[in-house]
Amino acid sequence: MRMGQLSERSGVPIATIKYYLREGLLHAGRRTSRTQTEYDETHVRRLTLVRALLDIGGLSVAHAGEVIAAMDDESAPVNQVLSTAQQSVSGFTAGSTPVDRQAAETALDELVARQGWQVSPGNPGRAAAIDVLATFDHLDGVDYADLVQSAAAAADIVAEADLALVQQAGGRREQMVETVVTGTVLGDVLIVALRRMAQEHHARKQYPQG
Amino acid sequence: MRMGQLSERSGVPIATIKYYLREGLLHAGRRTSRTQTEYDETHVRRLTLVRALLDIGGLSVAHAGEVIAAMDDESAPVNQVLSTAQQSVSGFTAGSTPVDRQAAETALDELVARQGWQVSPGNPGRAAAIDVLATFDHLDGVDYADLVQSAAAAADIVAEADLALVQQAGGRREQMVETVVTGTVLGDVLIVALRRMAQEHHARKQYPQG
Repeated sequence: MRMGQLSERSGVPIATIKYYLREGLLHAGRRTSRTQTEYDETHVRRLTLVRALLDIGGLSVAHAGEVIAAMDDESAPVNQVLSTAQQSVSGFTAGSTPVDRQAAETALDELVARQGWQVSPGNPGRAAAIDVLATFDHLDGVDYADLVQSAAAAADIVAEADLALVQQAGGRREQMVETVVTGTVLGDVLIVALRRMAQEHHARKQYPQG
Repeated sequence: MRMGQLSERSGVPIATIKYYLREGLLHAGRRTSRTQTEYDETHVRRLTLVRALLDIGGLSVAHAGEVIAAMDDESAPVNQVLSTAQQSVSGFTAGSTPVDRQAAETALDELVARQGWQVSPGNPGRAAAIDVLATFDHLDGVDYADLVQSAAAAADIVAEADLALVQQAGGRREQMVETVVTGTVLGDVLIVALRRMAQEHHARKQYPQG
């Protein structure tokens, strides 16, 4: 299809498609003559993914570019690609709080042991989790232990579904990586969104009077 | 305590404290003479919260200011304050995808019914959840139904713990609202962070060869 049709199919304006092409968010089409370029279903699909990363996931164009580059790097073994894709969508700003992190780090290690998880020190979630636990420690008067334990149980449920999703891809590398990226970025938004809805439900039960 | 000591206790530089005072993120101290102002434990605690919103939650100063204003508005009934606090930390960018949302909206309503949740149409999570489901629909070849169901189960577990946390505050309004804000903003980061860790664990089990 021509670029005009790609724009119609994807709902993305032509000027924006050209911008994505320049920024490496979208792979080039196939040149069929000096003035014509053909696009196909892979371009429609990629545009859906790019819009989801930017509009729903809230990633910057630069950050989305890194994710796309990781997806398109075919030299890496699958396990490493999954970890890169996962890491590149984990835009945590960690280690910035002035509070003491030692106790929080120990608490996280204990939580991981209780869950029976095998997690490497470089996991992108670790530093962020430590930041949160350290802040909880710092805010006296509330015991966050049950929330932390529930969050771990919830994370485990979702992660198991995440991996089942990757397995659906049946070893097709491109599909696996796309699934990790969409599942991770959109899954984050989905969990947080559904948490808001479940919070309203439980708050209504607990405080019916308003 | 004087501002110098507040800075030491909180780990926040004096210039930054002055900035937060100007922006309304921190309440004023008590003027004890023409040149001296006294700060207390409420200021230390508020600074911890502000840094958590900005550094860990990733909120903008303007957005954090809205959250603080909602926390400090003592005229509203508790249920409404909880909903405002929850809403003000839900920085979703919804409705921006060009894909068809009707089927996704129906699917979300069915999910809510299956969960037995009572959720109002204006819930801040709804539009974001619809966006995600619509994008999942649009990406053929992968069946996201189990992930969505798992995310709902996970959200329910966490939301129940969220409300138990609010209950700990025992009806003290300020404590309740602070708990909702920290629990929601930091809880979001925590769930996402722990999901990364659990993903690594399940990926290692599923793809041990690398």
